[in-house]
Amino acid sequence: MREILDLIKKGKVTIDEAVDLFRNFGYEELGYAKVDHHRSLRTGYPEVIFGQNKLPEHITGIVELMLRHDNNILVTRTIEEVFNQIKIIAPDAEFHKMARAITIRKKDFKKTDTHIALVSAGTSDLAVCEEAAVTAEIFDNEVKRYYDVGVAGIHRFYSKIDDIRKARVVIVVAGMEGALPSIVGGMVDKPVIAVPTSVGYGANFNGLSALLGMLTSCASGVSVVNIDNGFGAGYLASMINKL
Amino acid sequence: MREILDLIKKGKVTIDEAVDLFRNFGYEELGYAKVDHHRSLRTGYPEVIFGQNKLPEHITGIVELMLRHDNNILVTRTIEEVFNQIKIIAPDAEFHKMARAITIRKKDFKKTDTHIALVSAGTSDLAVCEEAAVTAEIFDNEVKRYYDVGVAGIHRFYSKIDDIRKARVVIVVAGMEGALPSIVGGMVDKPVIAVPTSVGYGANFNGLSALLGMLTSCASGVSVVNIDNGFGAGYLASMINKL
Amino acid sequence: MREILDLIKKGKVTIDEAVDLFRNFGYEELGYAKVDHHRSLRTGYPEVIFGQNKLPEHITGIVELMLRHDNNILVTRTIEEVFNQIKIIAPDAEFHKMARAITIRKKDFKKTDTHIALVSAGTSDLAVCEEAAVTAEIFDNEVKRYYDVGVAGIHRFYSKIDDIRKARVVIVVAGMEGALPSIVGGMVDKPVIAVPTSVGYGANFNGLSALLGMLTSCASGVSVVNIDNGFGAGYLASMINKL
Amino acid sequence: MREILDLIKKGKVTIDEAVDLFRNFGYEELGYAKVDHHRSLRTGYPEVIFGQNKLPEHITGIVELMLRHDNNILVTRTIEEVFNQIKIIAPDAEFHKMARAITIRKKDFKKTDTHIALVSAGTSDLAVCEEAAVTAEIFDNEVKRYYDVGVAGIHRFYSKIDDIRKARVVIVVAGMEGALPSIVGGMVDKPVIAVPTSVGYGANFNGLSALLGMLTSCASGVSVVNIDNGFGAGYLASMINKL
Amino acid sequence: MREILDLIKKGKVTIDEAVDLFRNFGYEELGYAKVDHHRSLRTGYPEVIFGQNKLPEHITGIVELMLRHDNNILVTRTIEEVFNQIKIIAPDAEFHKMARAITIRKKDFKKTDTHIALVSAGTSDLAVCEEAAVTAEIFDNEVKRYYDVGVAGIHRFYSKIDDIRKARVVIVVAGMEGALPSIVGGMVDKPVIAVPTSVGYGANFNGLSALLGMLTSCASGVSVVNIDNGFGAGYLASMINKL
Amino acid sequence: MREILDLIKKGKVTIDEAVDLFRNFGYEELGYAKVDHHRSLRTGYPEVIFGQNKLPEHITGIVELMLRHDNNILVTRTIEEVFNQIKIIAPDAEFHKMARAITIRKKDFKKTDTHIALVSAGTSDLAVCEEAAVTAEIFDNEVKRYYDVGVAGIHRFYSKIDDIRKARVVIVVAGMEGALPSIVGGMVDKPVIAVPTSVGYGANFNGLSALLGMLTSCASGVSVVNIDNGFGAGYLASMINKL
Amino acid sequence: MREILDLIKKGKVTIDEAVDLFRNFGYEELGYAKVDHHRSLRTGYPEVIFGQNKLPEHITGIVELMLRHDNNILVTRTIEEVFNQIKIIAPDAEFHKMARAITIRKKDFKKTDTHIALVSAGTSDLAVCEEAAVTAEIFDNEVKRYYDVGVAGIHRFYSKIDDIRKARVVIVVAGMEGALPSIVGGMVDKPVIAVPTSVGYGANFNGLSALLGMLTSCASGVSVVNIDNGFGAGYLASMINKL
Amino acid sequence: MREILDLIKKGKVTIDEAVDLFRNFGYEELGYAKVDHHRSLRTGYPEVIFGQNKLPEHITGIVELMLRHDNNILVTRTIEEVFNQIKIIAPDAEFHKMARAITIRKKDFKKTDTHIALVSAGTSDLAVCEEAAVTAEIFDNEVKRYYDVGVAGIHRFYSKIDDIRKARVVIVVAGMEGALPSIVGGMVDKPVIAVPTSVGYGANFNGLSALLGMLTSCASGVSVVNIDNGFGAGYLASMINKL
Repeated sequence: MREILDLIKKGKVTIDEAVDLFRNFGYEELGYAKVDHHRSLRTGYPEVIFGQNKLPEHITGIVELMLRHDNNILVTRTIEEVFNQIKIIAPDAEFHKMARAITIRKKDFKKTDTHIALVSAGTSDLAVCEEAAVTAEIFDNEVKRYYDVGVAGIHRFYSKIDDIRKARVVIVVAGMEGALPSIVGGMVDKPVIAVPTSVGYGANFNGLSALLGMLTSCASGVSVVNIDNGFGAGYLASMINKL
Repeated sequence: MREILDLIKKGKVTIDEAVDLFRNFGYEELGYAKVDHHRSLRTGYPEVIFGQNKLPEHITGIVELMLRHDNNILVTRTIEEVFNQIKIIAPDAEFHKMARAITIRKKDFKKTDTHIALVSAGTSDLAVCEEAAVTAEIFDNEVKRYYDVGVAGIHRFYSKIDDIRKARVVIVVAGMEGALPSIVGGMVDKPVIAVPTSVGYGANFNGLSALLGMLTSCASGVSVVNIDNGFGAGYLASMINKL
Repeated sequence: MREILDLIKKGKVTIDEAVDLFRNFGYEELGYAKVDHHRSLRTGYPEVIFGQNKLPEHITGIVELMLRHDNNILVTRTIEEVFNQIKIIAPDAEFHKMARAITIRKKDFKKTDTHIALVSAGTSDLAVCEEAAVTAEIFDNEVKRYYDVGVAGIHRFYSKIDDIRKARVVIVVAGMEGALPSIVGGMVDKPVIAVPTSVGYGANFNGLSALLGMLTSCASGVSVVNIDNGFGAGYLASMINKL
Repeated sequence: MREILDLIKKGKVTIDEAVDLFRNFGYEELGYAKVDHHRSLRTGYPEVIFGQNKLPEHITGIVELMLRHDNNILVTRTIEEVFNQIKIIAPDAEFHKMARAITIRKKDFKKTDTHIALVSAGTSDLAVCEEAAVTAEIFDNEVKRYYDVGVAGIHRFYSKIDDIRKARVVIVVAGMEGALPSIVGGMVDKPVIAVPTSVGYGANFNGLSALLGMLTSCASGVSVVNIDNGFGAGYLASMINKL
Repeated sequence: MREILDLIKKGKVTIDEAVDLFRNFGYEELGYAKVDHHRSLRTGYPEVIFGQNKLPEHITGIVELMLRHDNNILVTRTIEEVFNQIKIIAPDAEFHKMARAITIRKKDFKKTDTHIALVSAGTSDLAVCEEAAVTAEIFDNEVKRYYDVGVAGIHRFYSKIDDIRKARVVIVVAGMEGALPSIVGGMVDKPVIAVPTSVGYGANFNGLSALLGMLTSCASGVSVVNIDNGFGAGYLASMINKL
Repeated sequence: MREILDLIKKGKVTIDEAVDLFRNFGYEELGYAKVDHHRSLRTGYPEVIFGQNKLPEHITGIVELMLRHDNNILVTRTIEEVFNQIKIIAPDAEFHKMARAITIRKKDFKKTDTHIALVSAGTSDLAVCEEAAVTAEIFDNEVKRYYDVGVAGIHRFYSKIDDIRKARVVIVVAGMEGALPSIVGGMVDKPVIAVPTSVGYGANFNGLSALLGMLTSCASGVSVVNIDNGFGAGYLASMINKL
Repeated sequence: MREILDLIKKGKVTIDEAVDLFRNFGYEELGYAKVDHHRSLRTGYPEVIFGQNKLPEHITGIVELMLRHDNNILVTRTIEEVFNQIKIIAPDAEFHKMARAITIRKKDFKKTDTHIALVSAGTSDLAVCEEAAVTAEIFDNEVKRYYDVGVAGIHRFYSKIDDIRKARVVIVVAGMEGALPSIVGGMVDKPVIAVPTSVGYGANFNGLSALLGMLTSCASGVSVVNIDNGFGAGYLASMINKL
Repeated sequence: MREILDLIKKGKVTIDEAVDLFRNFGYEELGYAKVDHHRSLRTGYPEVIFGQNKLPEHITGIVELMLRHDNNILVTRTIEEVFNQIKIIAPDAEFHKMARAITIRKKDFKKTDTHIALVSAGTSDLAVCEEAAVTAEIFDNEVKRYYDVGVAGIHRFYSKIDDIRKARVVIVVAGMEGALPSIVGGMVDKPVIAVPTSVGYGANFNGLSALLGMLTSCASGVSVVNIDNGFGAGYLASMINKL
């Protein structure tokens, strides 16, 4: 803001121009969307598109616009059909089938020194786990995966505990009763990001049981993101890992 | 039924009398209640009064009637005021303050050889725990208590695991996220009766989080009773312990 | 644990080896899953795979691994397509269409002396019932079925009551208002495992009405498993039947 | 309406007067309330005041106005304090403590030939039951009470079944799992009005479990009124009994 | 029961035979179902099959059995495919497309003198309405339909009010906010059976808004059946109409 | 009403005819629907058909009837297939694909001087937005669209604030947490109509999170319509814009 | 904003001062609160304090600060005790007992030419109604009250319909099933602001039934504010009335 | 663990002693509680007691035990009465009235270089805010408070934005619609811990609206703790601040 104010003072822009400048900086109008480079321009962060409920041609259009800025790009909640369209304009795009995500890497991968531990309760949570992993990785974090170590056979978790403790931040993905974050939070002195999944049936009520269980966790250091929100967990973990 | 049919055949009762007999056996009319000796008469089980929402004089009236049968008596969800009235007609009555229960023991305590393990997650669940314990004990079971061993400091639980495995059936009482039964169910090869409690706040929603968590437990051998239903857990555990 | 500690004392393993042993015993890493033989190895129990949300090739892979141990195997919530793959590696596999389950019997069926009664309210609950039955049977229990005896025509239930009373434990499966477990619990002096089903419409809310009804049952000796959880009921019933 | 139209035709009222007549007939303005004699004037029905959330002086004011019409009067959901005020202006008023209701009988009790059966599951539902009974009685119905015959000791119900079948309509009051209306509906060929009560705890959720249970009842001929709505059940039963 | 007892007295059946008789009368075993002729045999009522969740061949099997008794038959929640199978064994079967029901009339239609008014709020509730109508008609009631008279254009309802008042009992079907039964209940002195439908979107939550609205109706004489339960309303209305 | 009363007085209609007139004016019977011209006739408003759950031939039939009155016509929640049928009888009909609506304009578009601002949080809410826009436009309002200006990049909204303030009434459409109406309501001194959408996943619970968020908005001047109810918002905005 | 930019250009403020000006204008810091005169300063609107959950001394402190600006003041959700403190610093303050509100009028009441109709379903909704009325009046609107005209005796409403139609905007307050706004919306061509109240019991679930009913209203022109939010309705009605 | 294993190897402890050591280290048995020094011993963290639902004498007993370890102590959810008891054994204890917390500082306050920003939406959330602040402070963090900057007057928030961006982690406390974390998350590139509060009424449903709003926030970098869980937020913020 100071820059713009400075321009006014120096008489380089009129007041009307200044008012316009205040208004239009930070995004590009695309008709069906206002593409926001605000954060990525300033920070070099990847640009992200939430693919669900968006038309394939809209996603492609947004990607096309983003490609001009040479940032990494991440498309989440998407399908192979979209990937095929994007490959045409971005041949180096990669499709992560399990994660339902597309990444386009424009900058070299400079892995963080510290890493993120990604812990999952069962094998049915893989899609959510991989969405978190792919997100964290396109943001240049090292991610270590510990899958299928849920509370029903908790000795599998204990065999990995020393490794997990070495991470800077831990993502725990679990469906059903969502008990695993309580266990992890009680044994690891690091921030725990809990991701409830909609995996389960009956009294699971589409993830409600896991969500409520994680929110009422009696372990400290645990916070929760939306049901199935692997991206949110990966993004937040990256933020904490890079502090 | 056969006995009554037999009496008819032998002509000892008329058909009308038989119809009456079919109808009235098993309970006594008290105006405000039909006291049911059905099960206790046959099995020697204690007689039980659910005290909540009952007037003190009604409870006392029912107890008076029951005293004639020389069975043990249990009053749950009750208060000291009721106890004071009952002591007059049953001087050997005992008040269990923490469990909010009254017991009257008419028969010697013949402890079972096998025992029930009673495991609780925190110190705030004590009322529900003790209701379960007092119930199981008036039904002549030996009960071993393992309190305050919840998942936030799960090493406290592990230090007791060998003992708990020796029980014939395990009651697990927990509020908040209700994760403990999953842990117990995963490590102990015995039937686990899970009791969610309404202890907690916020997203606990009066026990809903613990209830859903226990119902969706990924451990096998776990079943659930109503929120705060210590009596139900104690009764069922006694049934299983005596099989 | 003592065994491993013993090995250390005798100097047969180094401390590092011991730490490793503590960690890795009990499961096999399969990439997409950690297969847990922990319980089955020790107890001779069948090995169980929850099929829902698992890829067919993953299920087949896990079965392949399990076949090496000569235990009985149970796959639940699965489909014919998976069965066709498994038949190739396990020609003696059986598909239980109604129960949506696959069993592979490696050990002779030694039926228990006592049996489990399986009572259902209606004809629409059959899938859940049969999942419970197939589970209990692969765990070597005798199961007696009493189907379609719900409260709307309760005389059908009463005609079977003497038989049902002879069981060691009773599973009651019901949808809609879920009233049947209360009736059974009031008339049978055995542990009752209530299974709410999602059968119904409107205010049934996917099994919620049956679930809440069973949890608040005024009969004693009743506990509840998750909606449609036939496997859980069969497993627990087996546990109690074999005590 | 025809009467008013007739008056217009005959020129006895102007159009403006007619419009006014259309508007104002049927109630009296009291400032804080519009007292509606509409139905009672035409049918000789008692006049009813729902007492909850009304100021005592307002209730007394409404009663005073109603007394001019010599109909029976019923005040529901009220307390002794209100009764004491009303006794001053209506010395023959009666207070039904258990039902929390006041009645003023201005017309002789002409009992119906047929009667209403009032069945309750437990002793804790008495307030709701008595509200239904007092309502039906001030509407000149004979009411037969069958209390404490719930499903946990269902033989108590069966001993009364022949009597209950003689009623013209059956009210069934139950809390907890609300299973009794299903039993009654399955055995009695009469309309069953089910009243869920908020009696219970835990997963009862203030009557929700009983409400959902009754709505999803698999027995035919059962309909449901609001939780604890004894008045509504008594009123509807009276309507059906007098058809 | 008296009949059987009589046979015993007269020595015509042994006690064992009597016990059997008590058990087996009233239904026929079909393997997958226990067909209950109990009520229809005694009362001449039609026999009813709830078609949802039943296999076509099971429905046909049950119908085949029922055909022997020459009662009218009603199959609800069914589809054309089932009808085609049934037509083979019952050429006079009729399919009611809108009501999704099959009827087989074996007895002449003796219409009741009094009739049932069937009122619906909108045109989207027709399936539920017709299920109620077809049910009431196969039970030999005259039904008068008043469709699409909801509260948004309430003058359409008022134009029919005099006719509706002539019915003996009124069924009101409504989705969305379910306000129509309150209006009807306030203007018609007859029992009102309210049927909430799942028609709507958003905050309708599959019929919840209409259900709660009807349950809390401030009009008297209104009771409620399950969401979309046209059959239940038609059956109960028939019961009341024939009292 | 006065007109009809006047006719009676003048003897031009009999009383019976008057009663009939009272009843039948305002709608036309179509068998499957009562088409209500009441409001449109008097006000010149467009006639509206809610297309969801209606058969294509019914919609066409209603449109045919309406075409006689030369009012504009709006069909909401409909599909291309219906449009193709309607084009045959109304060649000037227009299909709004994104809005899932059909309009038939019979009167010239006289745009209002004042306008409605239509603000949306994201690109996934477009269907609901366009339903609101099309509705407001067929009611002759000028609508200005401000799409994709949600709180995650709130600077996009601020760049438009001066324009939005010039509207007479503001519609705000948002899914997920539904926070945008609070922001708008806090910064714009005009009535804000908030439309929650079902866009989202997990704890969104089909629009519940947005709905509750908007209802509890701490900004003044905000009111809420049903989830996804673009039509309702457009209609109400038109009403306010034309006051 | 332009004013501040202008000052910069003219060199009257430095850039740092400008940044500060941008930040601090519009509220006063009070330690426990940031009192916002933003809107009232510009528009002459009354200043409003939401009293619930605020300490009496805090409310008094905020009022004291506001008194300096000579605007009208409104305190909602408050109690007599607070009023007594405020009277000391503002002797002309008025307490509206039924509305639980305090008003301080500093400017003459210039009633609007048009008026707001305030319609309520029952006598138990008075507190919410009066909160709406007092709010609208301190904002200088004329308010006409139509109380106790709910759907159970809908003729009371019809007798007032011509008057209500003369209002510019209508507030409708209703508890229980919340059906009245649908009726009003169907008969009055003005914006209807619906206020659900928490008055009721049982399936009312603290206002949920009325809330859902109003949201799913099939009448057009109806929007909804939070349960019991009389202030919100009065504020919005004032906004619309003054357009 | 290695230490204990080492002792075995060296023969300094027998295997039985080792098993005991494994079990008992980390907590002290107090009869009513197992006091866990596990984490605080190792890390020098303060010891924490969750005061709600605990008897005063129990809290005092636990504090007494903890005092021996010279760590800082924090008691949350407590009352003045408890403080008075604790002051006797810990004269330097401090009571934080607004936060309902007691702190005992045994170690000097070594403030962190980086700090935590604590942002709240309104003045009614102060108790939750202060619980978070007191927690973070006893864990030796610098906390900067920004209170009463909610979305209804969002310019108050913007005036503080530059300061808030300097924090290492941001706690945002909000009730009602819980929109503030979305705004903060969209403008601040730091981890945001969102705390929903139960402040509100009506559709707030005890914090549900804020909770769901925060979980579905469309801003990245936001995670959520339980409703009113100020402690949890303070603890997690401390963890992140010290990474």
